[in-house]
Amino acid sequence: MLYQTKNPHGGDLFGREETLDFSSNIHPLGTPESVKRAVIGCADRLDCYPDPYCRALVAAIAQKEGIPEDQILCGCGAAELIFSFCAAARPQTVLMPVPTFSEYANALQQNGCKVIEHFMLPDKDFPLEEDFLQSIRLHTPDAVFLCNPNNPTGRLIPQKVLLATVDLCERMGCRLFVDECFLELSDGWKGDSLKNLLTAHPTLFLLRAFTKSYGMAGLRLGYCLSGDKALLQKMGSAVQPWNVSLPAQAAGIAAMRETGFVSAGREIIQTERPWMEEHLRQIGFTVVPSQANFILFFGDAGLGEAILPYGVQIRDCSNYSGLGAGWYRVAVKRHAQNAKLIDALAHIKRGG
Amino acid sequence: MLYQTKNPHGGDLFGREETLDFSSNIHPLGTPESVKRAVIGCADRLDCYPDPYCRALVAAIAQKEGIPEDQILCGCGAAELIFSFCAAARPQTVLMPVPTFSEYANALQQNGCKVIEHFMLPDKDFPLEEDFLQSIRLHTPDAVFLCNPNNPTGRLIPQKVLLATVDLCERMGCRLFVDECFLELSDGWKGDSLKNLLTAHPTLFLLRAFTKSYGMAGLRLGYCLSGDKALLQKMGSAVQPWNVSLPAQAAGIAAMRETGFVSAGREIIQTERPWMEEHLRQIGFTVVPSQANFILFFGDAGLGEAILPYGVQIRDCSNYSGLGAGWYRVAVKRHAQNAKLIDALAHIKRGG
Repeated sequence: MLYQTKNPHGGDLFGREETLDFSSNIHPLGTPESVKRAVIGCADRLDCYPDPYCRALVAAIAQKEGIPEDQILCGCGAAELIFSFCAAARPQTVLMPVPTFSEYANALQQNGCKVIEHFMLPDKDFPLEEDFLQSIRLHTPDAVFLCNPNNPTGRLIPQKVLLATVDLCERMGCRLFVDECFLELSDGWKGDSLKNLLTAHPTLFLLRAFTKSYGMAGLRLGYCLSGDKALLQKMGSAVQPWNVSLPAQAAGIAAMRETGFVSAGREIIQTERPWMEEHLRQIGFTVVPSQANFILFFGDAGLGEAILPYGVQIRDCSNYSGLGAGWYRVAVKRHAQNAKLIDALAHIKRGG
Repeated sequence: MLYQTKNPHGGDLFGREETLDFSSNIHPLGTPESVKRAVIGCADRLDCYPDPYCRALVAAIAQKEGIPEDQILCGCGAAELIFSFCAAARPQTVLMPVPTFSEYANALQQNGCKVIEHFMLPDKDFPLEEDFLQSIRLHTPDAVFLCNPNNPTGRLIPQKVLLATVDLCERMGCRLFVDECFLELSDGWKGDSLKNLLTAHPTLFLLRAFTKSYGMAGLRLGYCLSGDKALLQKMGSAVQPWNVSLPAQAAGIAAMRETGFVSAGREIIQTERPWMEEHLRQIGFTVVPSQANFILFFGDAGLGEAILPYGVQIRDCSNYSGLGAGWYRVAVKRHAQNAKLIDALAHIKRGG
């Protein structure tokens, strides 16, 4: 028996043989060389505590994002920041569209919060529509959680609905938590971030990660942006002083100096995603048109297990609230890898 | 303005020029080469999520400690485990001897706990004596926190008092949290650990770190041992799924395979500590006889600032409950470094 949080997510390759992992949604090129070098460069300083204030890293993020340093807080992966947001803000009632990333509800329920689910339906590709605003008015939650683009549907939130939600939450004094971890690798990379609204909207809270955009899942580094300085202070106090490791800080600084790495990933995704969607449809699956670096589709229950002997792992989404057996999510990777996935799925569909 | 937990501890070198750091208590030889190599070896796998269950690491710890795997939980440094223990066990009232490591009280108070302090006094070198047992009976706390050897006093808890506390807590159904992070580098390394009592005493909880014994402060890796499986499960659920990074897991496995590294550190400490204590006394300071890899002494207020121009940092202990201005803690390092510290202190004492 092994403890540690029940892990209902993808990316758990450790119980298995070498696997092509489509279950976690990482940049198709993996980790930049500069980030690898930064980690290697830490080897002779491992006996020093990391900077508890992440000074150099915060400065690098501030410069890259064009955001003041006092609107930035770093964490041990975006996942830790979800937990520390919940521990610091302690919302009693939260409204969120589902299906979505399950760690929001986990962290909220750990803190005694009631989670109200607003169901997005498969018939129109899980859209978030204006009736969501009525839902906010009806339930008057302490906080609203959004994921843009949404995991696992791969859909961006329409800007009209998103901006109206920002305004409504501000007027109602309701916190708005927006997870933008996948935004840079999505079709919304250019203008969909809400970061320019932070100063005017202190109820707004944005979550970012290095995990996806810079292939740093193993290092654990995320950050959040907010104009509510008291909240960030409280979040900082809710965790241990040295939550961000020395290698993670060095890697994050290197990542912020990268130019062209994220756009190179987007170019691959722009080419590969339509190819994968087309082939998934040809195999006979129902595909949710993606705007992100991963694709949700409806196939046959048991596909997640059936594909393992092919050395391929995909994300079984049956445990997402609002989905069920038969739903799967796959990352968009490089062509040779994607072709291997499609071949395996086609072979299984033909009867193995 | 930079967020992140207020950091009242040592080891914060990032606001300063290159410094000889006596403020954090790391193994005098730093990090083993095998651990450095393990971190470097991760550079090509940084885009993979770490094992959320730390399977290989838990197996390595279990083998080294002779403890069953289901009595082990890993965390992002011992500091995170202090927080997750408090979040999971949620004691309402805790009794602890002071002065001691301040993160216990921080983490407890974050979780709404009342902390009762049992003062250990300087006149007999801050002893923990049998009246502590009466104090437990009097206050009937939900949990007792001990640090063995105690930080910052460097004193081991007498085995008679320690074992009587284990028994009393078990009989009273009171949790007993014992921080053994410094034990391996102390005079108590051979027989003072309570790890063999875990199965018979499910109220017992032991904290361990790689930080000190293997010079891994920058990597963030600790573990805890307990026979209370429900508690460990709850602690695992109270944190994010991927709290222990890939480099930390690889480094921990390498550290567990080391032989002779910790004992080599103890040998240096056994030689250097009496030399430092003698010279600190010669300078005119009051020294608490240490049984650990650091020394607490009473000098002159302002020493912490006065020594900075010498390129040396020491731990000002004036913010410890039960101490006050004039108390300082220094690590035991290698001889050339220790000599530099003593020279600087002597020079300041002579009037700078």
